[in-house]
Amino acid sequence: MASSKCDKKYVYFFGGKDSEGTASMKELLGGKGANLAEMAKLNLPVPAGFTITTECCVDYFKNGSKNPASLEKEVMAALARVEKVMGLKFGDPAKPLLVSCRSGARSSMPGMMETVLNVGLSTKTIPGLIKKTKNERFVYDAYRRLIMMYSDVVMEKAEGIEPVGKGIRKLLDEQMVELKNKKGYTSDTDLSIADLKKLCADFKVTIKKVLKKEFPDDAMKQLWGGIGAVFKSWNGKKAVSYRRIEGIPDEWGTAVNVQSMVFGNMGDSSATGVAFTRDPATGDHKFYGEWLVNAQGEDVVAGTRTPSPLNDSTKNEQNKHLESMQKMLPKTYKELSAIRDTLENHYKDMLDIEFTIQENVLYMLQCRVGKRTGTAALNMAMDMLKEKLITEEMAVTRLSPAQLDELLHPILDPAAEKKAKLMAKGLPAGPGGAVGKIVFSSEKAVEFAKKNVKTILVREETNPEDVEGMRAAEGILTARGGMTSHAALVCRGWGKCCIVGAGALDIDDHAGYCKVNGKTYKEGDVISLNGTRGYAYEGAVSTMDSSENPRFQKFMAIADKFRKLGVRANADTPEDAALARGFGAEGIGLFRTEHMFYGKNSEKPLFYLRKMILSNTTAERIKALNELFPFVKKDIKATLEAMKGLPVTFRLLDPPLHEFVPTKAEAQKELAKALGIKVTDVQKRADGLHESNPMMGHRGVRLGITYPEVSEMQIRAILEAAAEIIVKGTKCKPEIMIPVTCDVAELKAQKVIIAAVAEEVKKKFQLKTLEYMVGTMNEIPRAALLADKMAEEAEFFSFGTNDLTQMTFGFSRDDIGGFLGDYLDKNILSSDPFQTIDQDGVGQLIKLSVKLGRQTRENLKIGICGEQGGEAKSVEFCHNAGLNYVSCSSYRVPIARLAAAQAAIKSAKAARKAAAPAVKAVAKKVAKKK
Amino acid sequence: MASSKCDKKYVYFFGGKDSEGTASMKELLGGKGANLAEMAKLNLPVPAGFTITTECCVDYFKNGSKNPASLEKEVMAALARVEKVMGLKFGDPAKPLLVSCRSGARSSMPGMMETVLNVGLSTKTIPGLIKKTKNERFVYDAYRRLIMMYSDVVMEKAEGIEPVGKGIRKLLDEQMVELKNKKGYTSDTDLSIADLKKLCADFKVTIKKVLKKEFPDDAMKQLWGGIGAVFKSWNGKKAVSYRRIEGIPDEWGTAVNVQSMVFGNMGDSSATGVAFTRDPATGDHKFYGEWLVNAQGEDVVAGTRTPSPLNDSTKNEQNKHLESMQKMLPKTYKELSAIRDTLENHYKDMLDIEFTIQENVLYMLQCRVGKRTGTAALNMAMDMLKEKLITEEMAVTRLSPAQLDELLHPILDPAAEKKAKLMAKGLPAGPGGAVGKIVFSSEKAVEFAKKNVKTILVREETNPEDVEGMRAAEGILTARGGMTSHAALVCRGWGKCCIVGAGALDIDDHAGYCKVNGKTYKEGDVISLNGTRGYAYEGAVSTMDSSENPRFQKFMAIADKFRKLGVRANADTPEDAALARGFGAEGIGLFRTEHMFYGKNSEKPLFYLRKMILSNTTAERIKALNELFPFVKKDIKATLEAMKGLPVTFRLLDPPLHEFVPTKAEAQKELAKALGIKVTDVQKRADGLHESNPMMGHRGVRLGITYPEVSEMQIRAILEAAAEIIVKGTKCKPEIMIPVTCDVAELKAQKVIIAAVAEEVKKKFQLKTLEYMVGTMNEIPRAALLADKMAEEAEFFSFGTNDLTQMTFGFSRDDIGGFLGDYLDKNILSSDPFQTIDQDGVGQLIKLSVKLGRQTRENLKIGICGEQGGEAKSVEFCHNAGLNYVSCSSYRVPIARLAAAQAAIKSAKAARKAAAPAVKAVAKKVAKKK
Repeated sequence: MASSKCDKKYVYFFGGKDSEGTASMKELLGGKGANLAEMAKLNLPVPAGFTITTECCVDYFKNGSKNPASLEKEVMAALARVEKVMGLKFGDPAKPLLVSCRSGARSSMPGMMETVLNVGLSTKTIPGLIKKTKNERFVYDAYRRLIMMYSDVVMEKAEGIEPVGKGIRKLLDEQMVELKNKKGYTSDTDLSIADLKKLCADFKVTIKKVLKKEFPDDAMKQLWGGIGAVFKSWNGKKAVSYRRIEGIPDEWGTAVNVQSMVFGNMGDSSATGVAFTRDPATGDHKFYGEWLVNAQGEDVVAGTRTPSPLNDSTKNEQNKHLESMQKMLPKTYKELSAIRDTLENHYKDMLDIEFTIQENVLYMLQCRVGKRTGTAALNMAMDMLKEKLITEEMAVTRLSPAQLDELLHPILDPAAEKKAKLMAKGLPAGPGGAVGKIVFSSEKAVEFAKKNVKTILVREETNPEDVEGMRAAEGILTARGGMTSHAALVCRGWGKCCIVGAGALDIDDHAGYCKVNGKTYKEGDVISLNGTRGYAYEGAVSTMDSSENPRFQKFMAIADKFRKLGVRANADTPEDAALARGFGAEGIGLFRTEHMFYGKNSEKPLFYLRKMILSNTTAERIKALNELFPFVKKDIKATLEAMKGLPVTFRLLDPPLHEFVPTKAEAQKELAKALGIKVTDVQKRADGLHESNPMMGHRGVRLGITYPEVSEMQIRAILEAAAEIIVKGTKCKPEIMIPVTCDVAELKAQKVIIAAVAEEVKKKFQLKTLEYMVGTMNEIPRAALLADKMAEEAEFFSFGTNDLTQMTFGFSRDDIGGFLGDYLDKNILSSDPFQTIDQDGVGQLIKLSVKLGRQTRENLKIGICGEQGGEAKSVEFCHNAGLNYVSCSSYRVPIARLAAAQAAIKSAKAARKAAAPAVKAVAKKVAKKK
Repeated sequence: MASSKCDKKYVYFFGGKDSEGTASMKELLGGKGANLAEMAKLNLPVPAGFTITTECCVDYFKNGSKNPASLEKEVMAALARVEKVMGLKFGDPAKPLLVSCRSGARSSMPGMMETVLNVGLSTKTIPGLIKKTKNERFVYDAYRRLIMMYSDVVMEKAEGIEPVGKGIRKLLDEQMVELKNKKGYTSDTDLSIADLKKLCADFKVTIKKVLKKEFPDDAMKQLWGGIGAVFKSWNGKKAVSYRRIEGIPDEWGTAVNVQSMVFGNMGDSSATGVAFTRDPATGDHKFYGEWLVNAQGEDVVAGTRTPSPLNDSTKNEQNKHLESMQKMLPKTYKELSAIRDTLENHYKDMLDIEFTIQENVLYMLQCRVGKRTGTAALNMAMDMLKEKLITEEMAVTRLSPAQLDELLHPILDPAAEKKAKLMAKGLPAGPGGAVGKIVFSSEKAVEFAKKNVKTILVREETNPEDVEGMRAAEGILTARGGMTSHAALVCRGWGKCCIVGAGALDIDDHAGYCKVNGKTYKEGDVISLNGTRGYAYEGAVSTMDSSENPRFQKFMAIADKFRKLGVRANADTPEDAALARGFGAEGIGLFRTEHMFYGKNSEKPLFYLRKMILSNTTAERIKALNELFPFVKKDIKATLEAMKGLPVTFRLLDPPLHEFVPTKAEAQKELAKALGIKVTDVQKRADGLHESNPMMGHRGVRLGITYPEVSEMQIRAILEAAAEIIVKGTKCKPEIMIPVTCDVAELKAQKVIIAAVAEEVKKKFQLKTLEYMVGTMNEIPRAALLADKMAEEAEFFSFGTNDLTQMTFGFSRDDIGGFLGDYLDKNILSSDPFQTIDQDGVGQLIKLSVKLGRQTRENLKIGICGEQGGEAKSVEFCHNAGLNYVSCSSYRVPIARLAAAQAAIKSAKAARKAAAPAVKAVAKKVAKKK
């Protein structure tokens, strides 16, 4: 067991200029503690107190849930300073000091940990406080609150007593309700001094009976109980599961803030409130907040009274009838407004503050950088830039990549959503909101769309045959599948609202209804989806349109100034290519040649492809390939044209052939008829192509090795398309990408074909030169391990992190649904590796590969084209790993651009920081010389 | 283009003591050239000649199929030395020297490359030779042979002329046959001098007409043509595909041996023969060979005349009527016998020699270490050890691990096999030979076995339901599947004869017949299998029994003296365990807990397993697990007992659950009835468990994370079984292995269960200590990459190279059949990575993992339990990688033991070699001091 070391400082005093902490010490003091110290230093009215560090919390747990030895002495010293500043004494009968014990982690975890207020009230200190406040009712009400809170948080939860029945808090609540009923009271404020006294006495009896312990009548005992309870709440159930979701490490620990109590509930000259220095929903430069007269913080949160607006300009429907603080307490409002300006100028950001007014005296209890919507984030960043409050570099970091998502899609109106009735939960697979009538088939979705009826396509899961219906529907809801299922992949690519894996859905698509928890939803019933959260609702929930605006364009242009990493899009059609350019893509990083066989206009090419697959001889196969060729070339040429000279990476055929052969008897029959062959031959071929693990089967370059003529056709289509563009005088240098490679010999073999075709095309088009690049998907662990060899033949790598993640983990994307939930719940994995690059394993391979590849070929171009290419953390990883570009679905291009800019800023900052001591040293030297 | 460097020596003279080469120079001179030089140095009668190095061949190809510049000068100098020794002159009208040009690679490639004899015969040299030999007919016959051979090998094949119709050789053959028919001759020897002269003239006309070139009438032109043709034949089709099969690198090149011609066809005092210094089939210490009077080497090979026995003691059925050399040429036989002794004493091994007698003078044309059967290899090694000809270390290296296979299984009699009619070819999946009646179902195989009728089970492919039939049958033949298909894995484990993937089989098992190339085979028809080669034959081929003998046991004991690597077996039943011990296994490296659900006695446990899988709640699942528990414990305990204290590694459940749920409607119905649930529930569960890529699905530890109660039951069974043995006073320390891990958190989670169960078991059995080890399969690339982390929790690693190879390559074992053939044919891969560890990729991960793992835990025990653990090259890799043990199927244990011993010897030798200069230096220093 590690025990505390004496040289660690565990306690930091705050209160006035002498405060020991600063805002930059969040890791040690937690967000609340660091900002309390900072505000105190700014001479703002912060009740004095002290912060016990997060380090102490960590040591507390290491120490078998015991306080480190040196803590007591430090706490007593800090408490003495607080007493001096406040002119009160903790536990003193005459001038008693009361304190609060609040948690405060590095990163905000609202409501997840415990708080104890009014610590220090005891039979010994009550008379003194009554004398001082001249308000006996207030004192006994405070005592009642302390007993209720303390018995629950400290005595039951923290001391590990298994709750008897409903738990102590509920019992005491019921006891109070009983008394109120008996006396015919409707509000807590109706309780008389005598009632409160009796309640306090009764509470103590109940506590003794249920918890088998006395409520502590000693201030110091209460204080240590409170401190321990806050520590322990770090490992409470709520806090732990919140950390899982938010990705907050268990090792951080929480700080404890012990602060002098101030009371907003000491009559009508007292109040409490919360505010944002600007509007967090819109970003408007307005002081925005709520307050309650004669109330404590918990009353604002509890929602039993409607809080009043802070000022007249921010009144809303709910509170327009209530009087603002601006009106009621103009002096204090002015004081608060000045503090608002001080804080914004100091922090250079929008802040979220908490204040209390005790008998006309204003106290600041909290300040932190405020959360905001995407729209607000954008507007504030651009406003503050205009106000010269922040630099461009700062502005770029003010909008999180995830918030961009919000700006790019219509969303459900958050207010309406709050009131909507939940239908089912699933995985947030495609962003934004959607409202429409339920349909259970693609055909219906298409049929309704023709009549301009909006639909939500509800399916067990989707497959390529559903693509038309998916396009037609407003949103997709599936019962099965994970974040990388067909529906999720397609929708994310399109930026379409989609929820997958809503397991509660029991769909009977023949009968045309589905059941969820006993309730039936029929075709035509309206539902609404929030694809960003994964929630489906009954009925129509109103939507909001966060359409593109010039500010957004300007913001992105500023971001691009900082960005080092290229951003390309994954796009497979000329339309996708145009969309991608619109979003600022600098090229196409992944054009999947097989995508022309899905979706609209695919009928003919798919027929020839199937004919090719069903060929019995090489000669037959070549005939079918020749018929297919013009379709492939046309598609490729149109895409190259749409990209107007920007680079396009064409991936040769990737999926196993069986994906293209129909498996249903009816479809097989049709195909046989069309091809003029026996249906048994179609069946036989389909059976022969069947694979046990198709992801690791006969696909990618393996097809090109077995059927060189298939590679040959695709290569010819690419190079002839390029040649046709070049002869018209436009520059064009296609990039040919060979997928699923595991050995350099595969590249060598395919390059022989490429070289031969290039020669033929040059001759045919009478070109002197025909430029192209040949590279490979780096998506098989062996290729990554042997990257030095691969780079002998490959001019570029594109990490296919979908497959690389599959093989590195041995996780099938399609089957991960069976266990990923358990892995995340049980904290085996911290995130879904198909959404965020696993830096330890997959990232290790990527870094090794970059190193080895560039050893062989210094100017090797390296990108990534897996799903993670559009995810912020992964983009940062790619920036740091020295990649040249990321490629992602078009709708994610802005996200990737912003993430890349922020990654560049972050590493530049780190570099400046690393250089700083050196600069200082030089400055010193120079100074000395002078 | 690289061109030759002047400082390379391309030509090595041989002939007498002055020969420039030695037997140790095989890499440079090829086997033939090196041994010719060695024999010459031993003063044996070798016709003088010279060897052009393999390096020259490599440079020839690098140089665009042109001779390096310095070659001509070196050849001329060497030729002059030959002329001097032989007292003849090449191309000289009076005393013409004739030479042969023969290939000679580093490793023997019999018949794969070209030879030209009688080079130097021309209109200019013919008269002189006639004068010298006084045998005009002989000379024109030699000339005829030269023209036929040269026009084919040099003029057509080497000079790249596309054969017209059947090719020049066939045309000339037909021309000769035509003449013989016209004249009514029955034998070539009937041709008169005039006939031969006419033939030679006619041949030249045909050559001119067909090949559009003159036959060269110049000795020197012929010589260079011959040399070039041998070089080129290195890249001939036959040679290339032979190299593929034998794994000989393309970069080696062949040497060319130019040697003075001697003639065994100069009358009855001339002869030619081949011999082995001991019997290559049995190993008997007898001089064993064949010879032909008045013949050239090609006549012995051609098989038109039956060769005579060398001596009386080795006569056989075919040649017992013929007179031996011992009788006919006693003096020369004695001379040859003396040479035999000289060679064996010099080479300390059995040799394969070629000789020619020209007019009573004996010449040695070749000597090399002779190929031998496994039995012979064993006997010779033990004999020579007894004779003190070789050391124990040498003896151990004399038997290749592959040859052991032969000693461990009955085989088809090679002589009988030669005459048998081939039915089909497939992959050699299970060793040895088998003969039996065709059956198409497991039930039939079992039924026939009861009547003591031997069967061959012929199936499309096998699955776990066939296991009983597979046990009952003598051998298995399947139409589909690769070397790691179900049939192959099971049979190799059992040491049962098996051929898989015989694609020509078209099986109709309902009708009870199969068709192969139009021919029908019915149930009951007898066929024979050679599982070591992958050939199936019609009818019964007689078998041989190479049963175990004491010599084998002794040999293995000697091998074990050198071995450093432990050898364990993969065994899943007490019977397997006993078998493994019999083969010398030092423990069980892989006990697959799921195997009890296959095969005999599996009915009840399988039922409870299925009940568990079909449970809807944890409580139901635990109930079923409790019912299953006693079966699992019993199996484990019996295995531990059978191993008598040797270590046993138990792997927790590995396969995905759907493998155990029946998919056929009938079986589902039955199961539903037995469980008292609805058949739709069975169907639903089966559908729900279906996976797209089960190899990367919900399996291994992933099951243990989702259903901790399943792990718990298995762990309890292992530890209770151990406790029951311990309380009886026997030592027992089971090893618990967690499969399919990719993160240390998985190990942590499972170890919590293990620790808890261990405590409970200790209490239950009142044990003070209960020893066990916990480790993991290292089979997922991520686990290998993060081995340092894994070793924090794992006390041992066992590389699961089957899965590791699957994931590293992205190759599904079950589907690799679709492209592996192309990959091997096109030289993309040099071998099947599921049979031999891929050292570049998978090996890199293994080595990294060993390094990282031991960084964290110095005494980390590391083994391998994949299929490759019993393959010689892989065993050597494991030895070099510093593993502690290999584990393989029982029948492969002796192979692994031998391979491990040989690997140890090899590295000890290398170490001695590396130390030698140091030792010499020390000796020098010591000498100096004196």
